[in-house]
Amino acid sequence: MKATAEVQVIPIGSGVSVRAEVKRAHRVLEEANLNAQLHSNGTNLEGELSEIFRAVEKIHETLHSEGTVRIATFIKVATRTDKEPSLAGKLF
Amino acid sequence: MKATAEVQVIPIGSGVSVRAEVKRAHRVLEEANLNAQLHSNGTNLEGELSEIFRAVEKIHETLHSEGTVRIATFIKVATRTDKEPSLAGKLF
Amino acid sequence: MKATAEVQVIPIGSGVSVRAEVKRAHRVLEEANLNAQLHSNGTNLEGELSEIFRAVEKIHETLHSEGTVRIATFIKVATRTDKEPSLAGKLF
Amino acid sequence: MKATAEVQVIPIGSGVSVRAEVKRAHRVLEEANLNAQLHSNGTNLEGELSEIFRAVEKIHETLHSEGTVRIATFIKVATRTDKEPSLAGKLF
Repeated sequence: MKATAEVQVIPIGSGVSVRAEVKRAHRVLEEANLNAQLHSNGTNLEGELSEIFRAVEKIHETLHSEGTVRIATFIKVATRTDKEPSLAGKLF
Repeated sequence: MKATAEVQVIPIGSGVSVRAEVKRAHRVLEEANLNAQLHSNGTNLEGELSEIFRAVEKIHETLHSEGTVRIATFIKVATRTDKEPSLAGKLF
Repeated sequence: MKATAEVQVIPIGSGVSVRAEVKRAHRVLEEANLNAQLHSNGTNLEGELSEIFRAVEKIHETLHSEGTVRIATFIKVATRTDKEPSLAGKLF
Repeated sequence: MKATAEVQVIPIGSGVSVRAEVKRAHRVLEEANLNAQLHSNGTNLEGELSEIFRAVEKIHETLHSEGTVRIATFIKVATRTDKEPSLAGKLF
């Protein structure tokens, strides 16, 4: 099932600057082939819903394995049956 | 990887009352064995992250197959390595 | 305008345990007379939209004045004109 | 207090296409002088927290007065005391 999504990853307890972790998370999304579009409050995605979720799991696994103790992630997903969901279709 | 989560499903274009779809979504979460706790702005969950995501996919599949054309879902997931994540541990 | 809402406050860079800040935030919401209902992923609220937002501002002011350097807050608000919005009306 | 934010407005029960309402909501944010940046999952904002919240209230008032019966809005706000919060500062 194709979906559009937004993913924002927040490392907790890693210090006030979270840039390294957020960059790392975005790179995992880019490698997932999900048309990742970075913006100031997350990364927009487009692709198979199962792959979007697998990418988020991979972010948690990756960051934890690299030392981040606590992670909160905020996800928006949208699907529709009347037309192919696309990030471009949500702009005007 | 164990996680806590919140899932809120919003059917779009199904009419002003979305109670039937929200109830249906919650039932899918209850059947997933994820310690589903309904509240006024979603369902809190606790369990394997991959199962949480599979349950959300199942909600989208179920609602679409039952006629809902458009669905937006808002998800919070949290994981930590210092202790077992639990819904009870997030209360005080 | 009456609304229902959910507010989740995440202090960033305050250490892995954020319990003290989250408790403090919840207390500000309780003092705001908004029918605050704590759950594992935030506090549900019911009341005037302007007062809900004022309470969130007060949380940021309070936590910053008490030393929290960085705060991310996630808010859901819902309003409707066909009936009085209420937290109880969103349960089933 | 200066903040960065994201606002996503979802009209419920207005039909499957919500483009008109979402465009209307974005226009209210643009008029609020908050450096509104549209993306596929909301509008990013930068400015005084109180003005961001006032703009969201104005969206609910405007859409309801123009006939939308039910609205759910998802808001992220972030503040920090170590440096001036900015949308540009959250990119890399």
